[in-house]
Amino acid sequence: MESPLRFDWEKLQNFCEMLFVRTGVSPEIAKIVSESLVQADLRGIESHGVVRTLIYHQRVEAQMINHTKEVEVIQEDDATLLIDGNNNFGAYIGIQALNRVIDKARKRGVAIAGVRGSNHFGTGAFYALKAIEQDMILLVLSNASQTMPPSGGIRPFIGTNPLAIGVPAGTQLPFLLDMATSVVARGKIIVAAQKGQDIPPGWALDKYGNPTTDANLALEGAVLPVGGPKGYAISMFIDILSGVLTGAGFGKYVNNMYENWEEPQNVGHFFLAIDINKFMPIESFKNRMDTYISELKGEPTAPGVEEIMIPGEIEFKGALDRKETGIELPINVVTDLFKLGQRYDLDLYTALLNSKEVNLHVSE
Amino acid sequence: MESPLRFDWEKLQNFCEMLFVRTGVSPEIAKIVSESLVQADLRGIESHGVVRTLIYHQRVEAQMINHTKEVEVIQEDDATLLIDGNNNFGAYIGIQALNRVIDKARKRGVAIAGVRGSNHFGTGAFYALKAIEQDMILLVLSNASQTMPPSGGIRPFIGTNPLAIGVPAGTQLPFLLDMATSVVARGKIIVAAQKGQDIPPGWALDKYGNPTTDANLALEGAVLPVGGPKGYAISMFIDILSGVLTGAGFGKYVNNMYENWEEPQNVGHFFLAIDINKFMPIESFKNRMDTYISELKGEPTAPGVEEIMIPGEIEFKGALDRKETGIELPINVVTDLFKLGQRYDLDLYTALLNSKEVNLHVSE
Ligand SMILES: NC(=O)c1ccc[n+]([C@@H]2O[C@H](COP(=O)([O-])OP(=O)(O)OC[C@H]3O[C@@H](n4cnc5c(N)ncnc54)[C@H](O)[C@@H]3O)[C@@H](O)[C@H]2O)c1
Ligand SMILES: NC(=O)c1ccc[n+]([C@@H]2O[C@H](COP(=O)([O-])OP(=O)(O)OC[C@H]3O[C@@H](n4cnc5c(N)ncnc54)[C@H](O)[C@@H]3O)[C@@H](O)[C@H]2O)c1
Repeated sequence: MESPLRFDWEKLQNFCEMLFVRTGVSPEIAKIVSESLVQADLRGIESHGVVRTLIYHQRVEAQMINHTKEVEVIQEDDATLLIDGNNNFGAYIGIQALNRVIDKARKRGVAIAGVRGSNHFGTGAFYALKAIEQDMILLVLSNASQTMPPSGGIRPFIGTNPLAIGVPAGTQLPFLLDMATSVVARGKIIVAAQKGQDIPPGWALDKYGNPTTDANLALEGAVLPVGGPKGYAISMFIDILSGVLTGAGFGKYVNNMYENWEEPQNVGHFFLAIDINKFMPIESFKNRMDTYISELKGEPTAPGVEEIMIPGEIEFKGALDRKETGIELPINVVTDLFKLGQRYDLDLYTALLNSKEVNLHVSE
Repeated sequence: MESPLRFDWEKLQNFCEMLFVRTGVSPEIAKIVSESLVQADLRGIESHGVVRTLIYHQRVEAQMINHTKEVEVIQEDDATLLIDGNNNFGAYIGIQALNRVIDKARKRGVAIAGVRGSNHFGTGAFYALKAIEQDMILLVLSNASQTMPPSGGIRPFIGTNPLAIGVPAGTQLPFLLDMATSVVARGKIIVAAQKGQDIPPGWALDKYGNPTTDANLALEGAVLPVGGPKGYAISMFIDILSGVLTGAGFGKYVNNMYENWEEPQNVGHFFLAIDINKFMPIESFKNRMDTYISELKGEPTAPGVEEIMIPGEIEFKGALDRKETGIELPINVVTDLFKLGQRYDLDLYTALLNSKEVNLHVSE
């Protein structure tokens, strides 16, 4: 058995960055996008990691992402902001919105930013973490192309619209919720289908609207919202704030990045930043968070449960671990990146951690 | 068989209002609290309807609610507000916060209000509906006493902390999400217990951490969060914004209104209001909402489903209906209200819609 392919996160990030730069993307943008992807892998969110490098690259090549056009402020006030991303990279646009909304929140105590004309922006945690570093509370929302039916429906109408929330703490880990509004990511169903496995009941519908445990039928059908009507409603709300309110796409007007090669995605995002100091001194707040978290983690656990976790904790610990032991990538992702690297005269394998242990031959 | 007891909503509201007034509550406060209770019944949320009149009354009598002390502004700025409810009625405090946060949002485009020192404030929809009437987007959160375990835990640690969101539309019904972060509101389990009914599996644990369908055992145990860790995380976030950030109680420091007769509840709330006009003219927004909702409602339905509903639709339609046909109350609620009425020389039965059909004898 070969060892799995494990990569040094910094070198992997550098590889992605160089790849984008050689495609013509500015170093600043390339850095942000690559950081977003590698951070997702570090945190164990493989579905939003460097696996997305290829599709991002393809959309740049097909001129479906325009990385040369600057983000544009449509409307601005002390505490509100509406920007048009002008179809640049989602993560770049997201960071522009984040920086501005935090500046405004620092002045007014609270600020919101709506974004239109954007693309897939990666994980919500990417933004929430940066806000936490600045002692801010952040809520970040994004819509996405259609994958989930409304309650009572059959066909995908809303996206698995993600919701992320970051809150700083003191000596405890910060609170970092980052979730899709579906029961599970569609990626998990793809994996089950590839392995010929069934999926648990409650994950998906077939294309006729019947519940199914057949992964292949599920992929032709729709992913279900988390918690039934409640997840559906939250996803719809995210679409309203990110899409309807900002002038971005919503519902069917958010284009699928894998399927639509005629038009930009027109994804919308929404950011809310809160300056804690308007409510109490940041140190008092952090003490209260520490009390809250330590009391919660001190609760008795159910049989078989080792530890009660707060949101984000699994990913924080995973990231620490992967910084040491490397990021493990599946062979198909490695192959894609390897080939992309070859086109731009970049050697992916210099980023390998365990290069001495593995057989470097990748079939083409 | 007796007909069920059905009440005229306006007369019922008047009855509750008079009841509070005769207890010494100011007419203004009595009106708000009664409107909140009867509106919940109209909308079919029996768990938060006039069934709560008795406990509210008992807490006033036990001096656990202090309806004579005004709400106090602790800190205030253009777009932020922190108020101490000084242990007045939750609904009264909530309306004070709502009015102020909407005023601020009208100036700054966005505003937030944190509330400490409050009590059970009824349904979130009560506030969201008032915001919708003023063409505002509202997010309202409240914490509640401990009823749900964290994921991996056994004992109640967080409340079924509710989340409500209101968004105006044009010719379509507005979007009105109002949900507990539990699979179902604990109030529904109380209602089931009062009716002697079982609850469905998946709603709750008994006090030993075992799944149960016995409503009484569930009330001694814990209600489960919606969608597993995702509902737990959202509930925790609500506790953070409503409790940790405002200086109110959080976790075990939010006192149970049925069990703790020594201290005020110290519930916290959080309001976020958004003025749509900062993003686009309200009429354009409403048109976009109408497009969104009508496209969504036009989706094909699953087998056995008549119509796709948007959040709040079931309750809107139910309320229209009940304004005509009356509010049906279970006999134990009628008995409680009847007895309370007798103490204050108020006749509940004048509020009956079908008084000619029913046997008016209520045993004591
Ligand atoms: N950009 C987009 O269009 C898009 C769309 C959908 C999802 N996403 C991203 O996908 C990622 C994955 O979403 P997901 O819903 O599959 O994540 P998930 O279900 O793995 O985790 C959701 C959240 O629950 C927490 N959690 C899970 N188990 C827990 C436990 N036992 N105790 C405490 N907390 C626990 C996690 O820390 C996390 O914050 C997110 O990063 C999201 O931003 C992005
Ligand atoms: N004050 C407190 O401490 C407190 C605590 C918990 C709950 N509550 C209140 O309890 C009430 C009930 O909460 P719940 O979670 O049991 O409500 P619920 O489950 O009945 O409904 C939740 C939401 O989902 C929507 N919905 C349900 N089915 C739908 C469908 N098929 N299609 C579209 N939308 C659908 C409803 O319109 C509603 O907005 C709420 O009013 C809440 O504010 C208050």
